[in-house]
Amino acid sequence: MSERLSVGIDIGGTKVAGGLVDVDGRVVGRARRDTPHRSKSPGVVEDTIVEVVAELLASTSCEVAAVGIGAAGFVAADRATVVFAPHLSWRDEPLEANLQRRVPVPISVDNDANAAAWAEWRFGAAQQDSHVMMVNLGTGIGGALVLDGQIMRGRYGIAGEFGHMQVVPGGQRCECGNRGCWEQYASGNALVREARSLMTANSPMATDLLARVDGDPMALTGPMITEAAREGDPTATELLTEIGQWLGIGIANLAAAFDPGVFVIGGGVSAAGDLLLEPARTTFRRHLAGRGYRPEARIVAAQLGNEAGLIGAADLARRDADGRQ
Amino acid sequence: MSERLSVGIDIGGTKVAGGLVDVDGRVVGRARRDTPHRSKSPGVVEDTIVEVVAELLASTSCEVAAVGIGAAGFVAADRATVVFAPHLSWRDEPLEANLQRRVPVPISVDNDANAAAWAEWRFGAAQQDSHVMMVNLGTGIGGALVLDGQIMRGRYGIAGEFGHMQVVPGGQRCECGNRGCWEQYASGNALVREARSLMTANSPMATDLLARVDGDPMALTGPMITEAAREGDPTATELLTEIGQWLGIGIANLAAAFDPGVFVIGGGVSAAGDLLLEPARTTFRRHLAGRGYRPEARIVAAQLGNEAGLIGAADLARRDADGRQ
Repeated sequence: MSERLSVGIDIGGTKVAGGLVDVDGRVVGRARRDTPHRSKSPGVVEDTIVEVVAELLASTSCEVAAVGIGAAGFVAADRATVVFAPHLSWRDEPLEANLQRRVPVPISVDNDANAAAWAEWRFGAAQQDSHVMMVNLGTGIGGALVLDGQIMRGRYGIAGEFGHMQVVPGGQRCECGNRGCWEQYASGNALVREARSLMTANSPMATDLLARVDGDPMALTGPMITEAAREGDPTATELLTEIGQWLGIGIANLAAAFDPGVFVIGGGVSAAGDLLLEPARTTFRRHLAGRGYRPEARIVAAQLGNEAGLIGAADLARRDADGRQ
Repeated sequence: MSERLSVGIDIGGTKVAGGLVDVDGRVVGRARRDTPHRSKSPGVVEDTIVEVVAELLASTSCEVAAVGIGAAGFVAADRATVVFAPHLSWRDEPLEANLQRRVPVPISVDNDANAAAWAEWRFGAAQQDSHVMMVNLGTGIGGALVLDGQIMRGRYGIAGEFGHMQVVPGGQRCECGNRGCWEQYASGNALVREARSLMTANSPMATDLLARVDGDPMALTGPMITEAAREGDPTATELLTEIGQWLGIGIANLAAAFDPGVFVIGGGVSAAGDLLLEPARTTFRRHLAGRGYRPEARIVAAQLGNEAGLIGAADLARRDADGRQ
């Protein structure tokens, strides 16, 4: 066997997930660790990445061409430095150089949403489309644009922070320090916050959800709400509908500005499928500028699930390595 | 003399402005007509364009390489058809073909904000920048992106409609049929609406403005408000500050999504200069996602004034004609 593989690593706030990825985007080997808490030194996260990479390299006899890192943070335009990672402990962290000293194959770094969008464009829901916008609904909202087969990174590498567009003046406080950010209305955190607020208000609407967590609102998770909605709980369905409506408003805003051919909706919340996407599509059509006078972008679910980030990081790194040869 | 010129035509809701433009972006000849009212047939606007072009062609002995049209409307990605022009009478109008039959030099069509952004990138405020966003504050908001020296037109040609991003849920009604669009808060129309609303409320704050129009709120115009602010009227200054603050919020949203190096602010309202741009800069910095952890886009005034559209249209048309040879 001499198939050419690359390693992809997806670094999120809670886990470091790694995979061996083949040239067709298939994950043929996996490794993962918990992300060290952000109170730890930057080097501890790097140690964890190096461990995951070493485990993957040791697990195969194939050639490994490159290692790609998708990081939840602002990655500078030169892709050598993580400028800011709110869920990690990085500030102006020279991640590429630090890892390259410790890993025997070429390293490439990118933003995690860029990596996921790249994977969906290469192997998933957005193949063939020239103007792709990816919106990942996780704890917050990550986003990316793939334009004519190129990731649009912006002047300083920080494009795609769709979640921090303000949609409600003076609205909910956001971790970024502002108020009314889109991710406070259309994300997993927003879904859980709204459900808990119904529960703590002792609303009779929340009876079913409360029963699922033995009366403890803090035990509720997003996947539980999706499960309740699938099982017909009207409150859970309504909560997902509201998230979907805010999703629709935000992507109508993005469509006005960038006019993509397709929106790919990924991230944990997208597991709710049409419970989320149908209200999003309806609200999108209602809010789109020039509706009725223009072709409309498609809104589709991501296809690669929570491995999109590592698949994309691996594929981007292989391309970089090929470019260097 | 054999200098190579091209003709640029800027078609707005009120005027058809034409110019002979040299290869350095200088306007060396001019012609203009009022735009026929939108109740007239589409052909009447085309007649007017043909008249302006004929006048300009007759006025020079130089070679004219091309005619560029910048139209206030949705121009399809193939740039042959105006899909929708709310201020004109065009719906799926085959503008390029209709004009080409009647004009003896090659015709190119583009959106007016795209043309203006191109001109500012080639000859004006944004030369050398790789990631340019143009925001034109006129009656509404027109916008465009120039990425690595290419206009980013979107999948269907309709990118840059920044004015129809929703910034206030359930807010002011917009001509587009929605509520809360950005252009209802940061445009010439918004400025005049707010001033008139103070005047009709008989607010003592409006005394100076009322005196300028002999007590008739409907006689007030945007330039009068700018003039009053320049002369020290605190109410006019406050009104421009509010428009500037909404401008800052909207461009912070665009910066989150797109991370440009520079915002170029054009259109009639931008004549207010720092009375508009200083509050915009302050609010932008306050709302930018990741502020303090990232380089920030510059916010600059357009340099080419209200001729940017025709200069850009002429230059784009010359490039198209050269590409065809």
